[in-house]
Amino acid sequence: MGAPMAAHLARRAQETGGRALVWNRTPGRAEAHASAHGSHAATLEELASADVIFTCLPTSAEVDDLIGALEAQLRPGTLWVDCTSGHPEAAPRQRERLAARGVGFLDAPVSGGTGGAEAGTLTVMIGGPEAEVEAARPHLAFAGLVVRVGETGAGFAVKAVNNVLLAANLWVAGEGLATLVRAGVDAGAALEVINASSGRSNVSQNLIPQRVLTREFPATFALGLLAKDAGIAMDLVQTGKGSAPVLAQVAGLTRAAAQVVGPEQDHTAALKLIEQFNGVEIK
Amino acid sequence: MGAPMAAHLARRAQETGGRALVWNRTPGRAEAHASAHGSHAATLEELASADVIFTCLPTSAEVDDLIGALEAQLRPGTLWVDCTSGHPEAAPRQRERLAARGVGFLDAPVSGGTGGAEAGTLTVMIGGPEAEVEAARPHLAFAGLVVRVGETGAGFAVKAVNNVLLAANLWVAGEGLATLVRAGVDAGAALEVINASSGRSNVSQNLIPQRVLTREFPATFALGLLAKDAGIAMDLVQTGKGSAPVLAQVAGLTRAAAQVVGPEQDHTAALKLIEQFNGVEIK
Amino acid sequence: MGAPMAAHLARRAQETGGRALVWNRTPGRAEAHASAHGSHAATLEELASADVIFTCLPTSAEVDDLIGALEAQLRPGTLWVDCTSGHPEAAPRQRERLAARGVGFLDAPVSGGTGGAEAGTLTVMIGGPEAEVEAARPHLAFAGLVVRVGETGAGFAVKAVNNVLLAANLWVAGEGLATLVRAGVDAGAALEVINASSGRSNVSQNLIPQRVLTREFPATFALGLLAKDAGIAMDLVQTGKGSAPVLAQVAGLTRAAAQVVGPEQDHTAALKLIEQFNGVEIK
Amino acid sequence: MGAPMAAHLARRAQETGGRALVWNRTPGRAEAHASAHGSHAATLEELASADVIFTCLPTSAEVDDLIGALEAQLRPGTLWVDCTSGHPEAAPRQRERLAARGVGFLDAPVSGGTGGAEAGTLTVMIGGPEAEVEAARPHLAFAGLVVRVGETGAGFAVKAVNNVLLAANLWVAGEGLATLVRAGVDAGAALEVINASSGRSNVSQNLIPQRVLTREFPATFALGLLAKDAGIAMDLVQTGKGSAPVLAQVAGLTRAAAQVVGPEQDHTAALKLIEQFNGVEIK
Repeated sequence: MGAPMAAHLARRAQETGGRALVWNRTPGRAEAHASAHGSHAATLEELASADVIFTCLPTSAEVDDLIGALEAQLRPGTLWVDCTSGHPEAAPRQRERLAARGVGFLDAPVSGGTGGAEAGTLTVMIGGPEAEVEAARPHLAFAGLVVRVGETGAGFAVKAVNNVLLAANLWVAGEGLATLVRAGVDAGAALEVINASSGRSNVSQNLIPQRVLTREFPATFALGLLAKDAGIAMDLVQTGKGSAPVLAQVAGLTRAAAQVVGPEQDHTAALKLIEQFNGVEIK
Repeated sequence: MGAPMAAHLARRAQETGGRALVWNRTPGRAEAHASAHGSHAATLEELASADVIFTCLPTSAEVDDLIGALEAQLRPGTLWVDCTSGHPEAAPRQRERLAARGVGFLDAPVSGGTGGAEAGTLTVMIGGPEAEVEAARPHLAFAGLVVRVGETGAGFAVKAVNNVLLAANLWVAGEGLATLVRAGVDAGAALEVINASSGRSNVSQNLIPQRVLTREFPATFALGLLAKDAGIAMDLVQTGKGSAPVLAQVAGLTRAAAQVVGPEQDHTAALKLIEQFNGVEIK
Repeated sequence: MGAPMAAHLARRAQETGGRALVWNRTPGRAEAHASAHGSHAATLEELASADVIFTCLPTSAEVDDLIGALEAQLRPGTLWVDCTSGHPEAAPRQRERLAARGVGFLDAPVSGGTGGAEAGTLTVMIGGPEAEVEAARPHLAFAGLVVRVGETGAGFAVKAVNNVLLAANLWVAGEGLATLVRAGVDAGAALEVINASSGRSNVSQNLIPQRVLTREFPATFALGLLAKDAGIAMDLVQTGKGSAPVLAQVAGLTRAAAQVVGPEQDHTAALKLIEQFNGVEIK
Repeated sequence: MGAPMAAHLARRAQETGGRALVWNRTPGRAEAHASAHGSHAATLEELASADVIFTCLPTSAEVDDLIGALEAQLRPGTLWVDCTSGHPEAAPRQRERLAARGVGFLDAPVSGGTGGAEAGTLTVMIGGPEAEVEAARPHLAFAGLVVRVGETGAGFAVKAVNNVLLAANLWVAGEGLATLVRAGVDAGAALEVINASSGRSNVSQNLIPQRVLTREFPATFALGLLAKDAGIAMDLVQTGKGSAPVLAQVAGLTRAAAQVVGPEQDHTAALKLIEQFNGVEIK
C-alpha cells in the first residue's frame, strides 16, 4: 500500500512546491521510489525534519519502534499521520508520547486496497482533534474520501470494525454459497441473484466473483493481517465490555483459517477452510 | 408484496389482451384490487382455469393448502408459479403433486421488498425445467431480473440463503456499530466510512441508515419471517449434511430476536436485541 | 452396542424361562452371538413372533426399513422397543404405523457406550405411554437406569440433546486446552485443576484424559454419528422454533470436523480440528 | 471468598505458633474477622511486614493498587500470594515490580466457591517458580488441592479457562434444556438422564438442579465476574493468536447476559437470557 500512497504524496508535493521524502527499511526501495515518482530518498534523520510524517506499517508495534527511533530529532509543530491499521489502545499512548515533543498525531488508517491506493481514491478514517485533521487534509493526496470519525483512536477503531465486517461478510457468503453448491446450485447463478437482492455485500459483489470463482485468490491483503485486524476489533469489544458474539466467532474462525490455509494467502482464501468444512469447491 | 405484484400482472394482461384474475382470502381485498388495477376478482374455481397461476404466501404450508383446494379443478397445461419464500423440500413434493394433474410448477421467490414490487423491479430466482421457466418468463411483469438458478427447489434454496445472508449482515453490522458507539464513535460517521470501504453491505448502505439510525424501523418485512427463512436455510444445511457454523449462530440469534423483540416488528429491529446486549442505542 | 446389549437380554431370558432371538443383517453374526450367549439366531419371520422386539440401528431410516420388512407378520400385543439414537419426528410416525397392527412402540435410546453395554449399566431414556414403559421395564436387562422422559419422541429428543451437549463439551474443553497449551501450560496439569473445579465435565474428566492425552482416540462412537445426533438436536430446535445459538455453532463445527478429520474416527477426534485451528497438540 | 479463606489462615497460624494479620478496605470487617477467628486486624503498614501476604480481590487492577500502596514498605524475602482471578498479562508485570523489592510473587487463584472456602477444600492453581510454590504450600490452609500449573501467569490462565468452560457449560446445558422444555420434556427428568450419560457436567449435575430448577439463583458468584473471567480467557486467546470460536461466542453471550439480566445476579442467571430467547422457563 505504502508505495502508491507515497507516489500520490510526491505528485502533490511537486504541484504545491513542496518536497516528498521517502524512507524504507530497505534503502533501495526508497531510491527506486524516488527515481520513479520524483520523491526524495531520505535518512531517518532527514525524515524527522518533515512538516508532516506519514507512516503505513503492518502493526502499531512497528510504529512504536519508529517513534522511538525518530523521537529525539522531531521538531515541535510537526504532524504525524499514521495510516497503519493500528490498535485503538496504541493511539492515545502514541499521541501522548509525541505531544511531549510538541508533535501532533492522527490515527488515519485507509481502506480501498492497492487499487484504491494507485487510483488515489482511498477512504481515510481519522481520529484526533479537528484542528489537526484540517491541517492534515490538504496533504491527503491519496484519498477519495476523508472522514473524521472521532477522537484519537477512533480511526483505528473504525478500521478494525470495517475489517471484521469484511471477515464476517466473507464467512457468511462463503458458508451460504457452499451450502448452495452442496444442494446442486451453481455459485455464479446464485451470486447473480444475491447481488440483485437484499443479502448482497461488497464481498458477494466484488471479492467472490473476482477472486474465488476464478480460483485466483490474488494475494493483495493477507489473511494473517485480516485475522490481526479482527483480533483488534475483539480487543475493542473486550475493552468496552461490549458483546459481539457473531463477530467473536468470525474472528476465531478467521484466525483458524490463517493457521490452516496460511497467513500469507489472500484474505479471500478464508473460503478454502469453508470449502474443507463442506467438502465442496465454491464455483 | 402480493398486491403490487398483481398490479403489474394486471397491467401486462391488459397490454397483451389477456385477463388477470385475483383472489384473496378476504374477498373485499380482491375486489378493491380489481377496481384499482383492472384485474378481475375471481373465485377459487375460476382461478383454476387460468393458464398461469401465481401464488405469494407466508410459507409453503399455505401453498400446500391452496394446491389442495384447487387440485381437483386444475387443467392440464396450466403453469403454477409460486413466489412464496418457500421450503426447498416442499418444492419437489408440490411439483410432483401438480404433475399428476398435468400442471407445471416453478419455485420462483422474489427479492426487492415492497419498493421493488411497486416499481416492478423484483429479482426472481427460479427453480425448475428450462422450458417451463421460458414459458413463465413473458408473464413475470413484476420482475427486473429473472434468473433460473437450477432444478426444482433451487429457487427456494437461493432465496433462503439470500435471506440468511441478510440476517447475518444485519447482525454483524449491528454488532460492529454497537461496539463503536460504546467506544464513543458516532454511528453515522462510521457508516459513511464503512460504506466507502471493504466491509460494506446492502445492510450498512441502505437498511441501517434508513431504518435504524432514523429509529423508524418501518415494518415491511417481518422479523418473524426472516427467522423462518433463516431456519429454512439451516434445514438446507442439515439436509445436505453441510457445515455453516456462523450462519447457524445467526439463525439462532435471529429467532431469539423475534422472540424477545417481537416477530411482527421489522426485520431490522433485530438490532434492538444487539442494543440490549450492549446497553447502547445505535445512533 | 447391539451385541453386548443382546447378551444381557439372552441372560435375562434364560433366568426367566424365556427365549432371546437374535437377528443381524449378517446371519453369521447372529449365529456367533447365539453360540456365545445362549440366544437363538432367527429369521426375520421368526422375529416377528416375539413378545418384545428390540432394535438398535444407526438411524431411524434403518428402523423404518425394518418395520416395513416385518410389518405384515407382526402380531397384536407385541411391543417394539427402539434403542436407536433416532429422530424425534420419526417416533410418532413409527408408533402410528405399528399401532395399525396392534403393536406398541417405545423410543428408548441408550447412553453409556460399549463399556456400559457390556456392564449392563446403560442409561435408557424412554418416550411413550406409561403402561408400555412399565411393560418394557422388566426386559431392559442392559440398563442401569431407566427413565421415562415423556411422550413418544421424548426419548429420542433427550438423547439428541445429551449428544449435542457431549459435542459441545468436547469443543469447549478442546478450545480451552488448546489455548492453555499455546500459552505454555501443560494440558494434564490444567485438567487436574479443572476436574477439581467448576468447569469440569464428563469430557474433561474421562474422555480427554483417556482418549486425547493418550493420543489413542479409540474408535468406539464415531464422529459422523455424533455429527448426525447434533444435527437431530438442531432439527428439534428448528421444529420447535427455539433458539440455541451456541449449540448451533457446535453442530456446524462437529459436521466440519467429521468432514475434515473423517466421519469414522472416534468422536473425540473432533479435537484434531481444534488442534489444526491452533497449530498445537493437546498434551 | 476472602473471609473464610482468612479464617483457615488464622487457624493454621495458631496451630503453628504464627500470627495472621487481616486487612480490609472497611476496617470494621477486619476487626470482626479478628474477634471471630483469632486473626489480628492490621494496618497496611503492619501488613507489609508479614512473611507471606495473601490477596483475593475482584480484579488485577485492585491488586496493582495494593502493591502500589505497600511497595515502599515491603521487606526482601516476603512472598506475595495473589488468589485473585487475575489477568495472565498482569502477573509477570506484578512479579517484576515486586522482585525489585526482593519480594516473591505467585498467581494462585482458587476454585470451589464459598462452600469450598468454608470447608477448606479449595483447588489452588499456581503459576510461578517451583521453589516459591513449595515455600507457599504449607501456608495454603484453605486448600484441598494445590497444583503448580506452570510459570508466572499460568495460574491466572488456567483459572480464566476454567471459568470460561463454566460459562460455556452453563450456556450449552441451558440451551439444551430450553429446547427440551419447548418440546414438552420435563427438565428434571431430562437432567436425571443426562447426568447418567455422556453429556453431563458440573453445571448439569450441580448448578442447574440446585440453582435453576429451584428458581433460587442464590447470588454467590456474580454473573458480571463470570463475564470478566470469560473476557480474560478471550484475551489469552488473542494474545496467543489462537482460535476458540465457540468460547468466543460464549464470552460474548455471557457479557450480554450480564448486561440484560444484571451483573450482580448469580452466574447461573445467565440462563434467564436463554429463557428469554426461547420464551420458556427451564423447569
